[in-house]
Amino acid sequence: MTVGVDLGGTKIQTVALRGMKVVGSARVPTPQSGVAENVIQAIAGTIHVALRQAGTDAAALSGVGIGSPGEIDAAEGVVRQAGNVPGFSGSIKLGPLLARALGGGVKVKLENDVRVGVLGEHRAGAGRPYKNMLGVWLGTGVGGGLILDGELHDGRGAAGEIGHVVVKPGGRRCGCGRRGCLEAYAGRARMERRAHKLVRRGQKTVLFEIMRKQGKPRVTSGVYTRALKQGDELTKQLLADAAWALSIALSSAQNLLDLEAIVVGGGLGEELGQPFIDRVVKQMAPHLFADDHPPVVLPTELGDLSGAVGAALLADEA
Amino acid sequence: MTVGVDLGGTKIQTVALRGMKVVGSARVPTPQSGVAENVIQAIAGTIHVALRQAGTDAAALSGVGIGSPGEIDAAEGVVRQAGNVPGFSGSIKLGPLLARALGGGVKVKLENDVRVGVLGEHRAGAGRPYKNMLGVWLGTGVGGGLILDGELHDGRGAAGEIGHVVVKPGGRRCGCGRRGCLEAYAGRARMERRAHKLVRRGQKTVLFEIMRKQGKPRVTSGVYTRALKQGDELTKQLLADAAWALSIALSSAQNLLDLEAIVVGGGLGEELGQPFIDRVVKQMAPHLFADDHPPVVLPTELGDLSGAVGAALLADEA
Repeated sequence: MTVGVDLGGTKIQTVALRGMKVVGSARVPTPQSGVAENVIQAIAGTIHVALRQAGTDAAALSGVGIGSPGEIDAAEGVVRQAGNVPGFSGSIKLGPLLARALGGGVKVKLENDVRVGVLGEHRAGAGRPYKNMLGVWLGTGVGGGLILDGELHDGRGAAGEIGHVVVKPGGRRCGCGRRGCLEAYAGRARMERRAHKLVRRGQKTVLFEIMRKQGKPRVTSGVYTRALKQGDELTKQLLADAAWALSIALSSAQNLLDLEAIVVGGGLGEELGQPFIDRVVKQMAPHLFADDHPPVVLPTELGDLSGAVGAALLADEA
Repeated sequence: MTVGVDLGGTKIQTVALRGMKVVGSARVPTPQSGVAENVIQAIAGTIHVALRQAGTDAAALSGVGIGSPGEIDAAEGVVRQAGNVPGFSGSIKLGPLLARALGGGVKVKLENDVRVGVLGEHRAGAGRPYKNMLGVWLGTGVGGGLILDGELHDGRGAAGEIGHVVVKPGGRRCGCGRRGCLEAYAGRARMERRAHKLVRRGQKTVLFEIMRKQGKPRVTSGVYTRALKQGDELTKQLLADAAWALSIALSSAQNLLDLEAIVVGGGLGEELGQPFIDRVVKQMAPHLFADDHPPVVLPTELGDLSGAVGAALLADEA
């Protein structure tokens, strides 16, 4: 029995896994006190709930995996600069602290949140049939993970950053400070910034009105789809740009790697789903070098559980 | 003892290898008769010469590797559409035919010409210290090969095509028919085409004059460096475009793969050498996501022997 935790800025999603089967799960809002210890206690709480659902307790636990934002030092179990998790902007010894909160003795493994999601989809989701695949996660930013020859490929620790493939030299400013990255066009935060800019230039949109009505502090994925249903032109334009940028970045990745599959996940990816994927696929076609042998492009199967499932699987690996 | 052959449109380069050491070599012009059998006999001839230099003969040969242009069917030993090798525009059973020409019984392995060059540099050249590297070969076109976790990574057979990473959506037309590929800016054939276009637009250049004086049918790598030495503005512009395009494609590859090293080879790459590489490195810097951890970018060590050495090493692998 292993447990996987998907730690995010707004929620903590935990699953208990026996083999490839989810036998328990728990989800709580991430404590917003700004104290890391509260977040760690909340994680431990979800683990106890998930184990109880699975009819067991911490004594049966062979390992815990955590997918976390920020920079991961897997060897030390340390997370750094996970700024969107309250209390995690510095350096947090998440691994050892959680092991202690669970009573000690349990092994805790850390990995990048997107990579565990991609691993989850590869081992237990849409990517099961494939040995070589790329996961592209559309969320606040655009993250990615590579599975090559059946294994997560992290290079020297930073591989998979499809979000920072250059789709337009000198193009839009990205959250990373550079210009023309995929994320500048297909990441939610940069799309929202672009929307503000277009409004300042005089364009109309229902995006911010929907956002306020739904009581959201941000233009969430759901806000985009709602605006789209209302035929909002500015939203159409933002999503057209995102699809275009994805088609460039994914084609380049495909020409370089000759992948079998590309899995599109993340909050925004899940929300936009198959119609958006179909559009990206169509625009990729003219850029594919081995055009008689395109990759399959798929939505996730595990949805918002892919991160937690991947983290649990990671806990089981050497 | 293995033998490696680098088959090209203008020359055949063969080496005999004992361990990692070149103990014999032979180089002949590729027969231009248009008859494939003549090319195969010429290859067999270079093998005999290389083996004699090594103080042995075909009886001591454990295998032959060939790096060839065109589409490779490694299982069948067949080369297809290697149009620039006279007589090879159709489907040629190069493996079985060469084995027969050598008296039968010897195993002949085929691989893409650029990939064997990259393999040669990885096993016996500039890439020795690295587990994850990309080779980018600047020649008539732009080819590439990926070494991941120490092994040649070919995906489903077509991985490594860095030449067809999109550097400028909607940009210059590439030899592959698509727009904005790296090769459209950094491949010799497309650079020559661009030079013709700029001349038609009224720009001056010494490129074609040097070409004619040297009795070349094409603007070869040597013609570019000669023109550069004469301060030719059009040549400077072509090479600036090539360096820019390489910086975009290599940065994107780096952000995706977090490579340790990038090796620049091929006829044009060898000719332009370190000053050109320095320029590319400088322009990559602002695009690198893990900018505190850039890859090393290196010229080849084996030069125009990398293909033949890599082919010989391939013959030795499972």
